[in-house]
Amino acid sequence: MDVVHEIAGMQRRAAEARLARKTIAVVPTMGALHAGHAALIREARSRADLVITTVFVNPTQFGPGEDFARYPRSPERDALCAAEAGSDILFAPEGAAMYPAGYSTFVEVAGITDVLEGRARPGHFRGVATIVAKLFLITSPHIAVFGQKDAQQVAVIRRLIADLNYPIDLIVVPIVRDADGVALSSRNAYLTPAQRREATVLHRSLQRAEACVREGERDSAAVIAEMRGLIAGGSGGDVEYISIADAATLQEQASIRTGTTILISLAVRFGHTRLIDNCIVEV
Amino acid sequence: MDVVHEIAGMQRRAAEARLARKTIAVVPTMGALHAGHAALIREARSRADLVITTVFVNPTQFGPGEDFARYPRSPERDALCAAEAGSDILFAPEGAAMYPAGYSTFVEVAGITDVLEGRARPGHFRGVATIVAKLFLITSPHIAVFGQKDAQQVAVIRRLIADLNYPIDLIVVPIVRDADGVALSSRNAYLTPAQRREATVLHRSLQRAEACVREGERDSAAVIAEMRGLIAGGSGGDVEYISIADAATLQEQASIRTGTTILISLAVRFGHTRLIDNCIVEV
Repeated sequence: MDVVHEIAGMQRRAAEARLARKTIAVVPTMGALHAGHAALIREARSRADLVITTVFVNPTQFGPGEDFARYPRSPERDALCAAEAGSDILFAPEGAAMYPAGYSTFVEVAGITDVLEGRARPGHFRGVATIVAKLFLITSPHIAVFGQKDAQQVAVIRRLIADLNYPIDLIVVPIVRDADGVALSSRNAYLTPAQRREATVLHRSLQRAEACVREGERDSAAVIAEMRGLIAGGSGGDVEYISIADAATLQEQASIRTGTTILISLAVRFGHTRLIDNCIVEV
Repeated sequence: MDVVHEIAGMQRRAAEARLARKTIAVVPTMGALHAGHAALIREARSRADLVITTVFVNPTQFGPGEDFARYPRSPERDALCAAEAGSDILFAPEGAAMYPAGYSTFVEVAGITDVLEGRARPGHFRGVATIVAKLFLITSPHIAVFGQKDAQQVAVIRRLIADLNYPIDLIVVPIVRDADGVALSSRNAYLTPAQRREATVLHRSLQRAEACVREGERDSAAVIAEMRGLIAGGSGGDVEYISIADAATLQEQASIRTGTTILISLAVRFGHTRLIDNCIVEV
């Protein structure tokens, strides 16, 4: 696997691959790669001739007071993980190259960025849309692979691709969980052993919610109350939000309609660590 | 020359050209093509294997109360003009295809869009940056050709290309003027014969300003006063702004420094018709 740091060099490699009629898949990440990322890279490997994994801890998607400075960084381990999962190129640009002095262009996806994570983290999805818009133009992919773990991010990228006419297929890979049910996340590294045990309640609450819906519950407030009770009873986690929304528009659904696809999502804090998780239910 | 209306069809043509190792140049226009546009297309022809002229009256760059509805449209004449100037493809999409229901993504270039035209026309450059971002992704050009007539637009596109990492060379073509000195513009069609004669004062005022600077005047206010006097004396034109700014940053310059490049620009209304013009001076 080659490691590329320069933007122009990456664009040259992508252009050469396209002229050689190779298909390109990109897997954008912020590094601290784990088995969840490896699943994305393997998916990309199964679909394209050239697999590019990007590693960039993007400052514009962190708010003031968020964990940009302490976000886990592990370049050697990332390279190993990406190579093992089948990546051909690891693209790891410098911050000063991605956002040089005078930088002033931002991509905004309206509407679906105001709710859920966007409400809790103002400006987050503007940063996400901007960096992904740039990475797509640098890596020139036919296919982009993202994880369902960041469900709202997927919805934002889907709109970005459609609205700006990127000729890119978006592939979404299911959440990868540890044996205890906790969704893999680079931020799990912040958890104490006790918090880690408590964090298992998130997946259990989502499973309970899905079971409620499958058993016929159609009142979102009742489902959410059930989840809140489970989380409060089984952990010291501080619920930031629990949402039942239309999976495409992310509009909250007060009542759950048969025949629709819903996204049940949550954000819960354990001490200073904020975890998110979700499940999609076809009702 | 082929006329293409469908976005997917245009992307297919561009992808085929790239696979055939052809270079692509795009000339984005709002139609109502005149000799100024023809100069852009000829420049594109001299630089690329495949020349794409786009014609789209972009609703998102018009403000409420502006002239979107009555902006001149002349599809047959546009096709003739583009073909004669050497265009291979005329891409003319429908508004509903470019901005379908649910459309919600916009590109914002901060800073240089707040002054001059951006101050007079809030949201204008957000619309320009968004449509150009889309047209670049649809036509996949190596080269994009714009006119110096819209000087601030050129500055915005230059930032858009650099910031989002479009692998595109920006070519800027000098202003084309009629024999009477009036800069060619689709909006000249709105002028009455009397207004047309008065509009010749714009170029004369720019020539006078350049002469003042060349003769050593370094006080922008004095140059602007000279221009205002000339316009007031020679026409009923209503000056919206006259600006002397750094050509790259568009920051107003109270005093003109030797060794810099300045943009002298103005917007003047003749009745309901708003004309812009400019010149660049290397001091």
